[in-house]
Amino acid sequence: MSGNSFGNLFKITTWGESHGPAIGVVIDGCPAGLKLTEKDIQKELDRRRPGQSTLTTPRKESDKVEILSGIFEGMTTGTPISLMVKNKNQKGRDYTELKEKFRPSHADYTYEMKYGIRDYLGGGRASARETIGRVAAGAIAKKILKEVKITATIKQIHKATTQKEMIQAILEAKKSGDSVGGIIECVIKNVPVGLGSPVFEKLDARLAQAMLSIPAVKGFEIGSGFGAIELMGSEHNDPIQKKKGKVVTLSNNAGGIVGGISNGMDIVFRIAFKPTATIFKKQSTITKTGKNTTLEMKGRHDPCVLPRAIPIVEAMAALTLADELLIQKAVK
Amino acid sequence: MSGNSFGNLFKITTWGESHGPAIGVVIDGCPAGLKLTEKDIQKELDRRRPGQSTLTTPRKESDKVEILSGIFEGMTTGTPISLMVKNKNQKGRDYTELKEKFRPSHADYTYEMKYGIRDYLGGGRASARETIGRVAAGAIAKKILKEVKITATIKQIHKATTQKEMIQAILEAKKSGDSVGGIIECVIKNVPVGLGSPVFEKLDARLAQAMLSIPAVKGFEIGSGFGAIELMGSEHNDPIQKKKGKVVTLSNNAGGIVGGISNGMDIVFRIAFKPTATIFKKQSTITKTGKNTTLEMKGRHDPCVLPRAIPIVEAMAALTLADELLIQKAVK
Amino acid sequence: MSGNSFGNLFKITTWGESHGPAIGVVIDGCPAGLKLTEKDIQKELDRRRPGQSTLTTPRKESDKVEILSGIFEGMTTGTPISLMVKNKNQKGRDYTELKEKFRPSHADYTYEMKYGIRDYLGGGRASARETIGRVAAGAIAKKILKEVKITATIKQIHKATTQKEMIQAILEAKKSGDSVGGIIECVIKNVPVGLGSPVFEKLDARLAQAMLSIPAVKGFEIGSGFGAIELMGSEHNDPIQKKKGKVVTLSNNAGGIVGGISNGMDIVFRIAFKPTATIFKKQSTITKTGKNTTLEMKGRHDPCVLPRAIPIVEAMAALTLADELLIQKAVK
Amino acid sequence: MSGNSFGNLFKITTWGESHGPAIGVVIDGCPAGLKLTEKDIQKELDRRRPGQSTLTTPRKESDKVEILSGIFEGMTTGTPISLMVKNKNQKGRDYTELKEKFRPSHADYTYEMKYGIRDYLGGGRASARETIGRVAAGAIAKKILKEVKITATIKQIHKATTQKEMIQAILEAKKSGDSVGGIIECVIKNVPVGLGSPVFEKLDARLAQAMLSIPAVKGFEIGSGFGAIELMGSEHNDPIQKKKGKVVTLSNNAGGIVGGISNGMDIVFRIAFKPTATIFKKQSTITKTGKNTTLEMKGRHDPCVLPRAIPIVEAMAALTLADELLIQKAVK
Repeated sequence: MSGNSFGNLFKITTWGESHGPAIGVVIDGCPAGLKLTEKDIQKELDRRRPGQSTLTTPRKESDKVEILSGIFEGMTTGTPISLMVKNKNQKGRDYTELKEKFRPSHADYTYEMKYGIRDYLGGGRASARETIGRVAAGAIAKKILKEVKITATIKQIHKATTQKEMIQAILEAKKSGDSVGGIIECVIKNVPVGLGSPVFEKLDARLAQAMLSIPAVKGFEIGSGFGAIELMGSEHNDPIQKKKGKVVTLSNNAGGIVGGISNGMDIVFRIAFKPTATIFKKQSTITKTGKNTTLEMKGRHDPCVLPRAIPIVEAMAALTLADELLIQKAVK
Repeated sequence: MSGNSFGNLFKITTWGESHGPAIGVVIDGCPAGLKLTEKDIQKELDRRRPGQSTLTTPRKESDKVEILSGIFEGMTTGTPISLMVKNKNQKGRDYTELKEKFRPSHADYTYEMKYGIRDYLGGGRASARETIGRVAAGAIAKKILKEVKITATIKQIHKATTQKEMIQAILEAKKSGDSVGGIIECVIKNVPVGLGSPVFEKLDARLAQAMLSIPAVKGFEIGSGFGAIELMGSEHNDPIQKKKGKVVTLSNNAGGIVGGISNGMDIVFRIAFKPTATIFKKQSTITKTGKNTTLEMKGRHDPCVLPRAIPIVEAMAALTLADELLIQKAVK
Repeated sequence: MSGNSFGNLFKITTWGESHGPAIGVVIDGCPAGLKLTEKDIQKELDRRRPGQSTLTTPRKESDKVEILSGIFEGMTTGTPISLMVKNKNQKGRDYTELKEKFRPSHADYTYEMKYGIRDYLGGGRASARETIGRVAAGAIAKKILKEVKITATIKQIHKATTQKEMIQAILEAKKSGDSVGGIIECVIKNVPVGLGSPVFEKLDARLAQAMLSIPAVKGFEIGSGFGAIELMGSEHNDPIQKKKGKVVTLSNNAGGIVGGISNGMDIVFRIAFKPTATIFKKQSTITKTGKNTTLEMKGRHDPCVLPRAIPIVEAMAALTLADELLIQKAVK
Repeated sequence: MSGNSFGNLFKITTWGESHGPAIGVVIDGCPAGLKLTEKDIQKELDRRRPGQSTLTTPRKESDKVEILSGIFEGMTTGTPISLMVKNKNQKGRDYTELKEKFRPSHADYTYEMKYGIRDYLGGGRASARETIGRVAAGAIAKKILKEVKITATIKQIHKATTQKEMIQAILEAKKSGDSVGGIIECVIKNVPVGLGSPVFEKLDARLAQAMLSIPAVKGFEIGSGFGAIELMGSEHNDPIQKKKGKVVTLSNNAGGIVGGISNGMDIVFRIAFKPTATIFKKQSTITKTGKNTTLEMKGRHDPCVLPRAIPIVEAMAALTLADELLIQKAVK
């Protein structure tokens, strides 16, 4: 309810602010007997780390994960797994102005209104660093999913759809102190039939929540998605067939989920990311005391979150499916 | 986890199948002291009832709600409110064929795989009748929301966008035994600032789950939504201003929610509904024993769910906001 | 959180007041494929029904259960099972005085303070009739538990320990318009090893909550219980031995649960019930408006709840174990 | 469900094993705007630390708490508070024998059976060190409770009831390599009326769970407790009176809770602790491979947990009440 936990049986709680001593996650409900090392987790964290190319934020963060509990002689024990990444490189930017002014389209104003207090250093909990915990936990979730294969890819950046154009779009945004958004598509293969629950915890409903919980996401669609509305039912229905001993559908407008439950076909969904809120152009806003003013931020920034969002999308999908796999075992 | 409950503090559990004795909902966590009569609930139920026009399914269902508990001398007492609607008119259709064949794009196959058993009469829990409980509970949620105003409207049916065209599109689908989908937009006015929680229980993430839990929904977008990707950050950011003593944003690409928390602007989201799966054309499918076959359904059907989905969308929005309102009181 | 639900995976929500139209329970999470008829449930309800002997309240309640959902062709389908018992015989007692005066040691005053409103007819939710839903749900839980055998017995009534003395004690209390309490012991045989979770959801901790949730319960002890304090560690520790291929402990001071997890020995716990609060002697109390007064109730009453509490204790134990059994399946 | 979390709105998750790198807790749902320093927490931790007298275990553990998140400029921000205590002094005892043999009345056997793996160093999660997280979180819960005053005291050790006798009993147990248990009573003053929820989340039921979750606890009783059974209803009922403008009961057999809801009188409950399982006498047990054997442990040990359990009892009471206080705010 306080919003920092995800999952029912495979349950994570993330904690930490970007400018505090550390950031981390506790995973409760991971089955015992899985081999797990810091290396398994570090591999995923390295994928979301900034400073990997000219396209993303130039910060050099090492983001070194430490396993603090839950592992004994290299194996999970069924007890909570606590993971921590110490924060570094916290200085350098001057946050004086942000103490007094709310950045447009950031969580500054809403946090201040909700809590009456706000960590204005780097966005506090609303920082992208919060997702470190999700990616770390996702690495463990993937161990449970075994042959299930989750792959997120960027389909569009601003108006660009080829890789070359997309890189160009990001570099241009960077140059002009502006930012761009785009679309990520996620495909999940080898999904067991039967994951998800009817009514409120439909698998697609849970994935929608999981994806909308990622910063900057504005939309989610599964299978035919918004395109469904231009099809007639007779075009949209997926015919069922037995082929080589396996039940398949001849089309996949459902996106792998029917009635909220996986049907064994690929799960396919798309997510819309808005352009990053941090830009270096002058913007209208108000001060903490309610006076109209302008804000012009300086320093480093990420003109496009999508390259770094890929492992986060995959992690959230993995966390959702791992949880549903455990639930399914209980029901069977 | 079993999927039939929604909400944390204002919590509902729906139950019932379309062809069982009754269908209903238990609301736990409704504050004491609200005036509530069956009439308040019936009003909302009547909006979702089929048989109101030539556009929707011709069934005559009376859907009369009975309050079984939680009300004393016309007031809520803080104890669970149990609502029941008896099922009528359950005969008439021959379900023999559906016992053996899975309807394409219905939950038949996935339910059978998940549970090893399935109520093939009218779709069981996957029936649209399940939403009766939601609408009934939503009527109570609205009492808590007071001045908050939730309005869902149909924006598009198939390719039609004017009312006349939309009616035409539905009638044509009906005539040809086919079906159509469309888009519903929901606008919520007078939302208090501060609803929603950071990270996993962002208000927009919860609304996404709520909407994707409605049968036939394939997509959700908030504010700028998928359109966000064609804007630069400098175009997308909503400038903040104090106007006549009130903090507003000059645009509303956020759709009323920033960092997962309501900012006081209108909440605006859109939902994509696929065309109804029930159509009267011959379709490929398999039998329960795994043989390829065809299915051609007959009888009555709803060529388009959108007219009846309006109160359901509003109910799910009301349930989400009522829950968040109570949570917000706890935190303050 | 609103208190009317119990369980995580095998989850029940009870609803209804003693003088409302009906009372009931929704069970969500019952696995599919179990044979279930109203008869299975009625059998258990009949055990808790008053009016069975001269020892308990003379009301003639038929308490006929109706299954409203979740069963198809005699089998559970994995969807919510809704059970309802209509209330009868609601008239006869004059509640005018109770509208204005709080009965000592009843929930009248605390409900009024918490909710600002209270159903003064028969105690509302605090009525013993609320337990109908628990017993009905417990009958289903027992189906999951299979060979697990739960038996509750009365060990003591007031100061009496033989059956003859106990009957005498109840009859005397009845005659004098007074009431008596006692001790129920519950023994659970054939418990699988490994039920329960470490730390906060220890099996004994959950049983303690389950038992203290029964009206009139003032104490819970497991295994050696309060007697443990008179033993030295060397006397209290249960030696482990392999006997005939089975791991056992030579004593069972643990009461079948070690570190919160079942060890395969019998689970044994005892529960203290206070004397019923309803008595026919003059008592000091206050009015709703805060004036000191006296109250002398008349009519029928139950001088001792223990005979009727037996199936309730068994039901709560069954609900706890069934939930843990499903959880254990998820973890394995 | 995985058992390491406690609370609904004020929710904690503890993690860590005694011989891992660290031990800790995440508190989610702490309201914003509370002053909080490491000193506030350290003060409580120091109360549970061993090595404070000759009566308890001679280990010198510094147990220094670090706040890793959730605090900004000395104030809580409404985001998760992560607390960590690094483990020290992990060597010294030889655990080779414990790798192969199950200690009687410890969680060794049940953990091994449940998880198929067990951290045999110092008991893993079943170690008393796990309670560090609870005590640390309890220090924060107390900030919310303000004028509510929770005091736990030792009432009996083995058969001793005076302080001098109790010290003697512990010293004798220590000398003989044996152990003793006892009774702790907890009194909570200035409790607001209305805390707790009807039916399954009665305040006393939640306290029972909270207390039984503490290692070595075998029994819980509230108010008259097991003594209730020797009283007639007319003796047990607590007369209500208005005295000096305040509603009180003339006796407090209820122990401050009626119908599961606090009535404003002192909450009074007692807890039975069994003698510590670790003793230095030869005991019968089995090996991991199922052979009968004996075990004779050596080294340091705690002959009686009660002195160190006092802050743990208080912490669990504080966590329960803080959670209920927030719930009550939501409902009002």
